[in-house]
Amino acid sequence: MLVVMQTHATQGQIDHVLDAIRDMKLTPHPMPGATRTAIGITGNVGAVDPRTLEVLPGVMELIRVTKPYKLASREMRPADTSIKVANTVIGPGTCTMIAGPCSVENEAMILRTAEFMMENGVRLLRAGAFKPRTSPYSFQGMGLEGLKILEKARAKTGIGIVTELMDTDNADAVEAASDIIQIGTRNMQNFSLLKCVGKARKPVLLKRGMSATLEEWLMAAEYVMAGGNYNVILCERGIRSFSDHSRNTLDLSVIPPAKKLSHLPILVDPSHGTGKRDYVPAMALASLAAGADGLLIEVHPDPDHAASDGAQTLDFTAFKKLLDALKRLAEPLGKTVN
Amino acid sequence: MLVVMQTHATQGQIDHVLDAIRDMKLTPHPMPGATRTAIGITGNVGAVDPRTLEVLPGVMELIRVTKPYKLASREMRPADTSIKVANTVIGPGTCTMIAGPCSVENEAMILRTAEFMMENGVRLLRAGAFKPRTSPYSFQGMGLEGLKILEKARAKTGIGIVTELMDTDNADAVEAASDIIQIGTRNMQNFSLLKCVGKARKPVLLKRGMSATLEEWLMAAEYVMAGGNYNVILCERGIRSFSDHSRNTLDLSVIPPAKKLSHLPILVDPSHGTGKRDYVPAMALASLAAGADGLLIEVHPDPDHAASDGAQTLDFTAFKKLLDALKRLAEPLGKTVN
Amino acid sequence: MLVVMQTHATQGQIDHVLDAIRDMKLTPHPMPGATRTAIGITGNVGAVDPRTLEVLPGVMELIRVTKPYKLASREMRPADTSIKVANTVIGPGTCTMIAGPCSVENEAMILRTAEFMMENGVRLLRAGAFKPRTSPYSFQGMGLEGLKILEKARAKTGIGIVTELMDTDNADAVEAASDIIQIGTRNMQNFSLLKCVGKARKPVLLKRGMSATLEEWLMAAEYVMAGGNYNVILCERGIRSFSDHSRNTLDLSVIPPAKKLSHLPILVDPSHGTGKRDYVPAMALASLAAGADGLLIEVHPDPDHAASDGAQTLDFTAFKKLLDALKRLAEPLGKTVN
Amino acid sequence: MLVVMQTHATQGQIDHVLDAIRDMKLTPHPMPGATRTAIGITGNVGAVDPRTLEVLPGVMELIRVTKPYKLASREMRPADTSIKVANTVIGPGTCTMIAGPCSVENEAMILRTAEFMMENGVRLLRAGAFKPRTSPYSFQGMGLEGLKILEKARAKTGIGIVTELMDTDNADAVEAASDIIQIGTRNMQNFSLLKCVGKARKPVLLKRGMSATLEEWLMAAEYVMAGGNYNVILCERGIRSFSDHSRNTLDLSVIPPAKKLSHLPILVDPSHGTGKRDYVPAMALASLAAGADGLLIEVHPDPDHAASDGAQTLDFTAFKKLLDALKRLAEPLGKTVN
Repeated sequence: MLVVMQTHATQGQIDHVLDAIRDMKLTPHPMPGATRTAIGITGNVGAVDPRTLEVLPGVMELIRVTKPYKLASREMRPADTSIKVANTVIGPGTCTMIAGPCSVENEAMILRTAEFMMENGVRLLRAGAFKPRTSPYSFQGMGLEGLKILEKARAKTGIGIVTELMDTDNADAVEAASDIIQIGTRNMQNFSLLKCVGKARKPVLLKRGMSATLEEWLMAAEYVMAGGNYNVILCERGIRSFSDHSRNTLDLSVIPPAKKLSHLPILVDPSHGTGKRDYVPAMALASLAAGADGLLIEVHPDPDHAASDGAQTLDFTAFKKLLDALKRLAEPLGKTVN
Repeated sequence: MLVVMQTHATQGQIDHVLDAIRDMKLTPHPMPGATRTAIGITGNVGAVDPRTLEVLPGVMELIRVTKPYKLASREMRPADTSIKVANTVIGPGTCTMIAGPCSVENEAMILRTAEFMMENGVRLLRAGAFKPRTSPYSFQGMGLEGLKILEKARAKTGIGIVTELMDTDNADAVEAASDIIQIGTRNMQNFSLLKCVGKARKPVLLKRGMSATLEEWLMAAEYVMAGGNYNVILCERGIRSFSDHSRNTLDLSVIPPAKKLSHLPILVDPSHGTGKRDYVPAMALASLAAGADGLLIEVHPDPDHAASDGAQTLDFTAFKKLLDALKRLAEPLGKTVN
Repeated sequence: MLVVMQTHATQGQIDHVLDAIRDMKLTPHPMPGATRTAIGITGNVGAVDPRTLEVLPGVMELIRVTKPYKLASREMRPADTSIKVANTVIGPGTCTMIAGPCSVENEAMILRTAEFMMENGVRLLRAGAFKPRTSPYSFQGMGLEGLKILEKARAKTGIGIVTELMDTDNADAVEAASDIIQIGTRNMQNFSLLKCVGKARKPVLLKRGMSATLEEWLMAAEYVMAGGNYNVILCERGIRSFSDHSRNTLDLSVIPPAKKLSHLPILVDPSHGTGKRDYVPAMALASLAAGADGLLIEVHPDPDHAASDGAQTLDFTAFKKLLDALKRLAEPLGKTVN
Repeated sequence: MLVVMQTHATQGQIDHVLDAIRDMKLTPHPMPGATRTAIGITGNVGAVDPRTLEVLPGVMELIRVTKPYKLASREMRPADTSIKVANTVIGPGTCTMIAGPCSVENEAMILRTAEFMMENGVRLLRAGAFKPRTSPYSFQGMGLEGLKILEKARAKTGIGIVTELMDTDNADAVEAASDIIQIGTRNMQNFSLLKCVGKARKPVLLKRGMSATLEEWLMAAEYVMAGGNYNVILCERGIRSFSDHSRNTLDLSVIPPAKKLSHLPILVDPSHGTGKRDYVPAMALASLAAGADGLLIEVHPDPDHAASDGAQTLDFTAFKKLLDALKRLAEPLGKTVN
């Protein structure tokens, strides 16, 4: 923490700030400069709301230095986290595929998709039983019945299940049915839900909030980890910007700094990131090249008649073609597609 | 809904789109133009996911026309909504004040604040018992004990209570303790929570999500109203932009279009909007001038020692001064501060 | 300037950073903390590119402290700047109106508008002879011929002229024809143009760039002032955000921090800020209440047939009504509309 | 163009809009729907300012359909543009490297860099003689003297020169010294400058504005092309968003839609896009995988002592390593690095 005083701050104002810092049981380090004085602060800064210093007379601005996340931080844990799930692993050296339809529509299409994925070496199926929809009048998912269908698909094909949890009421059911619990972008700062999955025994796939900074995203991961669940997987899915050429602005540039600041694996969802199936393959390849540890891809046996998000969904043929392209690209990058 | 074909689209491609529209039980209206054909669509468009048309061969783009909200729409209900709550009213002709500390800290400070507010004609107290905090290590609010303190303050002073609900687990307790249930910005698209308060008998103050468009905000209101609770109050509290001079970018320019598109009252929270107490009075006055139906202001007996958000909180003297300035400004605007 | 070291930085790495700082002829102030060391830097920091320190081994991040603007800074000049222009003044205590059509279309409409403005006490006419248009196929303004029409209007009515300069080629002609030279939002960081008007003898109205932070805006003002022209007037006109309910997001919340950091007057252009005439009056009133020193309003005798920007332009009747409302609002705010 | 009427619009209001459209010499196509009427418009829509229709009584909103760019549009010219420059080519099938220091600092370092590039198969050198700097107190480039150094390097090594033009005053000198004229991000809507290079005989590298939509970017290209210079190369270099983990938000997701809408080649500048040299290689590889036709990379013999932008600049060793990685990645993508 650093307090920057105004150019014309009086010695009395500076002394007042020094006292206020000591009142907080912290240590001030005054640094008189050519045009102004800055005051470094050391001690357990996390416990106080530093902004109160900012409104003291003579203070120009207050600058935070310490990162507020601990468990998610690479400084605390230098080695990459590797997460074992179902019959595969998410972490360094691999590009893990999670593919499937936006929502569970019926048993036949889920089974058909799960079988297709297993045949093609994809070990994780994504499909929503509970769907967060912008409109109350849109299809809201099959709910508990959808979870049962997913469990059947797992039993029959051995595929791992990734499915979204939207509220604490359904936490036990979703945890039982899934191998990875997904927290959606709109719930990234639903702190009650984060605390809830912090107690779950399944890994959590945490989508980045539409307007979340990297720090806020890591703080959301920290909520889950602080509850005892260290198996958090980050997932970039596009942010909100002025840019209107695609549904969201897929922020691949977050991957290198996320890798620098955190040891957690990071996946990318180019289907939601672009919103258009034509753009998905290029952005999937770019994600892999940027260093992503895996991909979430929306795939449906018949996208044009999907119950939701058909426009951004690949059919089996297009997905298989993408899978082949990813494998060719993975080699020079020293990664394996699994 | 309007489908715009590419310049070089063939007649076969156009016919294919016309058929796809008819398959959706909708009516196509082809419009051949100088350079390309556009196809208008009429019928119950809300039920289909139009983006599937966008990926058909020869289609350039798809443009949605119909607004997806109904109950929140001024077209459906031309007259301004007026909401009676506690001993006051929120709606046209008034600027309703909701003031108080960020969080319930103890009984004494809540009582003192409630009494001060009632003495100064403010009829609604805001204070959080459950606090959404970015860090799991920050003060999370007093919880149910905090709600009891609020109920005491109401019983003793007659003031109305505005407090936040963060999850469905505490819905009954918060509804009982409050006169207005607040939904925070991070939960604006927590659809499970919106459905829950749609069944509540208390009005809902719905803060705008940090990166919510006006349409998404009205759709969140629609979720609550579709559940049967028509008493929704919108509250602008700053959006996320590149701009870094204040904590958020307070978007006062949303007020005129919100008033045009919806009949719901709209308040502004300049405390969260700016994040700095020095900027609160100017933005409060500007909100009133822009047409806001009321204000949420963070006020604390001793802001420099507040448990949270002290830097954006006014003390009693500054709040009283602001209240006087608002009253003087309200007169030429034809409004009453209540 | 503050260098924050990583938690695990070695003493050798810290020493290397201290040496690098001394190589830059600056003074390092090491501050060992509980979890990491931070190093304050004092001296003439402006001359070096600090980001090179950021890439040294063991460095976590680098934080800039000193503001890079000097002449525009309130710390350097505590009193508000007041600018005399034509027969009026822009500065504290007043709300100065600048009104007129988007572009000069012909002599008759300019004369008619100038006369109407003078009759109503408005002393500054805005109208573009050179128009920055997004499309090369749109009307680009009347050019030098338009300037002549503006000079005629000034000669005949005594009104002051505010008109845009788009390039250095026309600098002399625009300076001669205008009382205030306008720099448009798209040219806020056209540094060649800023240097050019730094040598002009007329005040400069500097519109904020669409994605300019407050600091970048003040740095653009600094360019003009560094050239010797201290008469800079800031003008907020809406920023780029995800928000799509209006043409731009009018950022009134920039007014209090701009006033805090700089002594320069600040105006608001709600016509470009909203892009819709229905929204202009509410945002004009809000600008005044937020502390703006004046307003730019697009007014045209017949907006529906304006050559450009008609949709955001008021007719005479609507403008007169707005002017009256502004006068009523100015009184309790202690301001005079001029 | 599509006019959407309000639900309660009267027949009189609809007729008034139909008349207004005919007054503009356009053809209206009314489409009565279940809840409201929409009116399609065909004809030469580009010539009118459609927003005037938006303010007519009974109109809900106005939706533009036709793209305003023509020469830059893939609909007008389906085949990818390929641009021959110096001794290389920019276009389909290749990933063209443009590398070099941020600014020309002296003859020795430019020559050394040019020789290194030619030895490694890079045929285009980037270096600024005129530098757009945020602060008037920062190094502004060597100017004409810098151009002479670049010409010497070209004469001696045969390398092609890419350098920025900031104003019309230096247009001839920059055109003579360069093989590609660069227009910087801050000048993307400096229309006078765009018209100027529209008459140049050298290709133009047009950087995307910090807050430019894809359409605005293509319209800027259209300005150059409308002047007769069809050799425009687009260059993505990061946009402005709320995201603060890197200097800008590199928008790789613009590549697929840019390729869909336009035939122009598109390069990426990951150095400015990220602002940190550690992040450049990952984003360079991702750009190639996303479909970029080339890369701009900042390289300097001694980045830590560069006059500007050292923190985002690679040294020769790091650049050579990146070049090798790009070549390995290009193969499975069916591209050649040149």
